[in-house]
Amino acid sequence: MGRWEPNASGRLSQAAMELYVERGFEQTTVAEIAERAGLTARTFFRYFADKREVLFAGSAVLQEQLVSALDGVPASASPMEAVAAALDAAATVLGGRRDFSRQRQAVIAANAELRERELIKMATLSLALADGLRQRGVADPDASLAAEAGIAVFRVAFERWVSEPDDRELSQVMRESLAQLRALTAAG
Amino acid sequence: MGRWEPNASGRLSQAAMELYVERGFEQTTVAEIAERAGLTARTFFRYFADKREVLFAGSAVLQEQLVSALDGVPASASPMEAVAAALDAAATVLGGRRDFSRQRQAVIAANAELRERELIKMATLSLALADGLRQRGVADPDASLAAEAGIAVFRVAFERWVSEPDDRELSQVMRESLAQLRALTAAG
Repeated sequence: MGRWEPNASGRLSQAAMELYVERGFEQTTVAEIAERAGLTARTFFRYFADKREVLFAGSAVLQEQLVSALDGVPASASPMEAVAAALDAAATVLGGRRDFSRQRQAVIAANAELRERELIKMATLSLALADGLRQRGVADPDASLAAEAGIAVFRVAFERWVSEPDDRELSQVMRESLAQLRALTAAG
Repeated sequence: MGRWEPNASGRLSQAAMELYVERGFEQTTVAEIAERAGLTARTFFRYFADKREVLFAGSAVLQEQLVSALDGVPASASPMEAVAAALDAAATVLGGRRDFSRQRQAVIAANAELRERELIKMATLSLALADGLRQRGVADPDASLAAEAGIAVFRVAFERWVSEPDDRELSQVMRESLAQLRALTAAG
């Protein structure tokens, strides 16, 4: 039951991230997360299946934004132009939360199980993006290749964005990385 | 202690694959694999840590071939030319075993845990390839981008090769996929 708590989900996320950074993911319990947020474990489980899902709760939104961005792309656009639009949409979802993203990346990098979960997330994004391209009439293997290349750019750009000291926009780093991939493949 | 058995590893691999295809990976036990191979479970465990590792025993050799292929590439070659040489080497390792690869792919596709393990293998290959490129003096993010793009091509080409009905060489499908990625990125 429990009464409604304002922004319980946000408070739980923030408390969880603080504890994962302070103590490590494995050493943190749901009870501790709830306590830090001033809530109960029962409330925690109303929002998240387990403590791992705090880190992956945004995946569905990210995927939805990535794929639905394809709808706004003119039919005449090339597959990689469509992918670029999807990456722009992803940058919009993630770009405003650099501190959160940095902390999240550090927590994931420190734990093998989380790194695996993140790999699965990226593979799922790639499959969804390939499906979206097929629905635009892009045939295989082009759909798969463009999606995999797009997710490769996403991954490398995201990693750069969270680790570089200057305060660039994620969308800018994504576009730059895409241009670099183009230059690399053109060179040989 | 058990006496030495000729080609025990190969017999166990073949027996395991037969059973995985016939019954499914989860429904197969190590005892059954050993029995089918005419060997003991004890002998099985001399070669494989568990029944999953039968499917991934080749990963180390694949990675070694992929990375050491870079040594044979002239210093003047572009990063993607180096990646293309690595893919050629991978095709040489895998290309002669299409029936085995087909069966393996089907077994992996049917099991979530194996799909995850395969994702981890591909991510590990990408990191190793990026490291190899860095050792050639390729700076980041180019090293990561070229490696990720190379593994994307590898994955898509391998999938095509095992699923298409005609009997093309894996190396040919890899080169074609790389050319398609180049055309895709050049177009936009």
